[in-house]
Amino acid sequence: MALAGDPDILTDFIVPPNQNMVDGNFFTYTGMRVLINQDFPTNFTILKATMAEFPALNGQSVSYAVLEYPTGTVNPPHTHPRSAELLFLIAGTLEVGFVDTTNKLFTQSLQAGDMFIFPKGLVHYQYNADPKNAAIAISSFGSANAGTVSLPKTLFATDIDDNVLAISFKTDVATIQALKAGLASK
Amino acid sequence: MALAGDPDILTDFIVPPNQNMVDGNFFTYTGMRVLINQDFPTNFTILKATMAEFPALNGQSVSYAVLEYPTGTVNPPHTHPRSAELLFLIAGTLEVGFVDTTNKLFTQSLQAGDMFIFPKGLVHYQYNADPKNAAIAISSFGSANAGTVSLPKTLFATDIDDNVLAISFKTDVATIQALKAGLASK
Amino acid sequence: MALAGDPDILTDFIVPPNQNMVDGNFFTYTGMRVLINQDFPTNFTILKATMAEFPALNGQSVSYAVLEYPTGTVNPPHTHPRSAELLFLIAGTLEVGFVDTTNKLFTQSLQAGDMFIFPKGLVHYQYNADPKNAAIAISSFGSANAGTVSLPKTLFATDIDDNVLAISFKTDVATIQALKAGLASK
Amino acid sequence: MALAGDPDILTDFIVPPNQNMVDGNFFTYTGMRVLINQDFPTNFTILKATMAEFPALNGQSVSYAVLEYPTGTVNPPHTHPRSAELLFLIAGTLEVGFVDTTNKLFTQSLQAGDMFIFPKGLVHYQYNADPKNAAIAISSFGSANAGTVSLPKTLFATDIDDNVLAISFKTDVATIQALKAGLASK
Amino acid sequence: MALAGDPDILTDFIVPPNQNMVDGNFFTYTGMRVLINQDFPTNFTILKATMAEFPALNGQSVSYAVLEYPTGTVNPPHTHPRSAELLFLIAGTLEVGFVDTTNKLFTQSLQAGDMFIFPKGLVHYQYNADPKNAAIAISSFGSANAGTVSLPKTLFATDIDDNVLAISFKTDVATIQALKAGLASK
Amino acid sequence: MALAGDPDILTDFIVPPNQNMVDGNFFTYTGMRVLINQDFPTNFTILKATMAEFPALNGQSVSYAVLEYPTGTVNPPHTHPRSAELLFLIAGTLEVGFVDTTNKLFTQSLQAGDMFIFPKGLVHYQYNADPKNAAIAISSFGSANAGTVSLPKTLFATDIDDNVLAISFKTDVATIQALKAGLASK
Repeated sequence: MALAGDPDILTDFIVPPNQNMVDGNFFTYTGMRVLINQDFPTNFTILKATMAEFPALNGQSVSYAVLEYPTGTVNPPHTHPRSAELLFLIAGTLEVGFVDTTNKLFTQSLQAGDMFIFPKGLVHYQYNADPKNAAIAISSFGSANAGTVSLPKTLFATDIDDNVLAISFKTDVATIQALKAGLASK
Repeated sequence: MALAGDPDILTDFIVPPNQNMVDGNFFTYTGMRVLINQDFPTNFTILKATMAEFPALNGQSVSYAVLEYPTGTVNPPHTHPRSAELLFLIAGTLEVGFVDTTNKLFTQSLQAGDMFIFPKGLVHYQYNADPKNAAIAISSFGSANAGTVSLPKTLFATDIDDNVLAISFKTDVATIQALKAGLASK
Repeated sequence: MALAGDPDILTDFIVPPNQNMVDGNFFTYTGMRVLINQDFPTNFTILKATMAEFPALNGQSVSYAVLEYPTGTVNPPHTHPRSAELLFLIAGTLEVGFVDTTNKLFTQSLQAGDMFIFPKGLVHYQYNADPKNAAIAISSFGSANAGTVSLPKTLFATDIDDNVLAISFKTDVATIQALKAGLASK
Repeated sequence: MALAGDPDILTDFIVPPNQNMVDGNFFTYTGMRVLINQDFPTNFTILKATMAEFPALNGQSVSYAVLEYPTGTVNPPHTHPRSAELLFLIAGTLEVGFVDTTNKLFTQSLQAGDMFIFPKGLVHYQYNADPKNAAIAISSFGSANAGTVSLPKTLFATDIDDNVLAISFKTDVATIQALKAGLASK
Repeated sequence: MALAGDPDILTDFIVPPNQNMVDGNFFTYTGMRVLINQDFPTNFTILKATMAEFPALNGQSVSYAVLEYPTGTVNPPHTHPRSAELLFLIAGTLEVGFVDTTNKLFTQSLQAGDMFIFPKGLVHYQYNADPKNAAIAISSFGSANAGTVSLPKTLFATDIDDNVLAISFKTDVATIQALKAGLASK
Repeated sequence: MALAGDPDILTDFIVPPNQNMVDGNFFTYTGMRVLINQDFPTNFTILKATMAEFPALNGQSVSYAVLEYPTGTVNPPHTHPRSAELLFLIAGTLEVGFVDTTNKLFTQSLQAGDMFIFPKGLVHYQYNADPKNAAIAISSFGSANAGTVSLPKTLFATDIDDNVLAISFKTDVATIQALKAGLASK
């Protein structure tokens, strides 16, 4: 169980209790090597390097994700409870947006080489609208475990009461059940 | 514009630049007096006492909201980007729930006098399922400005592209447009 | 032993080591139900919902206290080492005050529905001066364990040397011993 | 007015708005030179080097005080709202104590060269009980502005209502008025 | 001048005082587009996206740098006073190392796709030892302004007294002056 | 292993797991008594009172070091990864300096009674240039474990590759090896 927080630590780094020896390997993460020379995936795909995959990040307040968007795919609206996200578009183009707490939508069309900051805790999404070219982005987070709340799944694939959702979304139970069925099928 | 953050401040309190004199009134908020002996509202209603309404909260890392639920009403799924919420049910009963970042739903049926903690940054809702009795709750937050991301409005009333939403929610554009129309009509 | 601090945590919530299963009950506190339909106490009484009584508050930076003041009773001068206090007067009237680090006293007469913020770490008190009506307040704190330093007891009921106290309070040892006797008798 | 807090800053140091040039003098504080070769004071005396006297400390989370205790003098019970205090006894002997939030008193007799830590926000005092020798201590704080709440003055020299104090200290109004008179005469 | 720190902010984002309108462009940084299809530089080169270049990062606790290493080049030993660095090697190979506060050196040979974490505040370097292939890395930081202390320049190109340096490095003044001359020539 | 960080703790103090009883001795550090009436050392000497030597400092965000400089000695350039340093010169004179992240050197000649603040994470040094008199300083830190990165040792006594160092310092391998030999001889 992780008790330590993202704030400053009192040691150079934090070694897990079950770790016998610490050398350069402890500070290295090789889980992204699969990205080199791989075939591009056919679905939107995320590879993460957070504290869970890379324990040396504990206490260092930083982590990464690599996002691969085949044409026409979307990273659905979501939030990160513990960090902002700084997205760096490596290849392709990307439509991005976020909504602030006054319900204002901010959007942008990114080209390769562009960065976009999604502020802490706000709902955001990305969409590769290009019909021909895939897109790849690297995102960094100012937390070793930013966390992700994927809103379609959180709202419609976790057994929240149909009636609560129907009232909340000002629709009928049948529409809610159809949305649930669609998201459950995945 | 407020630059200061919620972390510890270097003064006993923070006085706004335009404030001439500071006495006991500066530390007092009377905006909730309307709750005493009022008629109960017919819709779900929130009264807030955050830094915006009560500037003395700046730097003190705490704020309040009073929530009034007529029978059958819902506080729709939402998140607070900058704080957990500790709800205290003063009267009535309430169905509450939140979803963690592993997509696990936690629910509870609260009775008067119960408290429930909604952890930082997670999606949560409340529902007064009682057909006869209204419910009243007081919620406190460990931030002077917790912020609220109301998900129905954020997702379906802020002009996010229909296609992005249809792909995200695994439904068709017509369903998205119907949801948008329903939420816009309010 | 609690090692974690109030700053941001790296997980959605913190489960105590001895906790086997986590469901909605873990996030619920029922210890305040006794307040509903009880007889009003005859002494000033505090019920707390902090990390000690409600372990799910660990890492969530928020807690509550309910304060009941029969007529003529006082919550003696005290400080909270780890948080400001935001008091919400639910019923009755209350005389409140705090002293800042420049030794300036701020006071207010509160009526039902009013809120008052006692800034972090400063000495404050409340007094129900109404000869007929009891008062009830709910206080929230921006820490899961704000702590309380009750000054009469801390100063005069903990065996601090009589001479130190007499010099400090510019009085004689007999007066100190009388104060100690009065506070010990309770 | 200082808005910035003690947490990490985003710059190497913070220059006040009215400061034209920054050189080595900005980072130097000469206000303690008076201590060298001075006559020892006849009363308990504190010299401070906090953000108020030494603006370069802003954002650096550290400050100093030098404390001089003629024989038989006391630093009366007080708290620091924003920091622990680490006292280093340079000369003489000193009786020290603090009370934790469970009302437990911790005391120690220090000799020259000893250090004592007074934890954050707790009531503490020092007493030079030696009838012949003065004592000198240097105290450091993990905040550029720890603040001081001197309890005798806060409680009995700030016009808190006599009745509130009499009830709080379980004594009569005459005793409170006598204490107030003694502390006001200084 | 930016007063706000990296800790949590009380707003969704921070808008600079001189900013009239905020739209998607404010959250976008296009300064890295030059990297796409450019000629590879002949010297070791860093492009940064920190708060200075990209003001929307203020308060979001994250920033980026792109590092380009021609064959045989080195990013000299340096520290970042305000953040750890998470390096992601995009192409080529890289020899990396850091030294902890016990003077233990940790090294690693990275291949494309590998990540390496340099803990907060410690001295580290990178070296492209490959005689044929250039290397490119993206580094992220858990601060909007991590800062860089380049040790060769800090030590030998800032007029620190020759004698201080000679004693510190246990060498003679002539060696120090030769080192200074070499670093000044750049 | 200590997981807790320097940020605010949720308890009055932190007791190590193996500690049976806590009384005034736990809060006392006697390791500096050796300084009283000792012979002055012949080399530059540091005595520390950090969390390692004085466990009660854990969670209190403050620590001390006493620095003794015989004539002509230097505290070599170094950084503290986790805190600023506030130096208080007790006796003698001292030449001090630090370099900020823009490579600007700030220097000062201190006399007894002067204080100097070395900002967080920056390279700094002290030099007793007086040919006759020793100097003594007390330094405090806003962290219980500020850490020290001694640059001569970190750079030239930890087996960093000669080639990396030669390129970094724009010199030849022979010079690097001579520096390494000089620092290794100590």
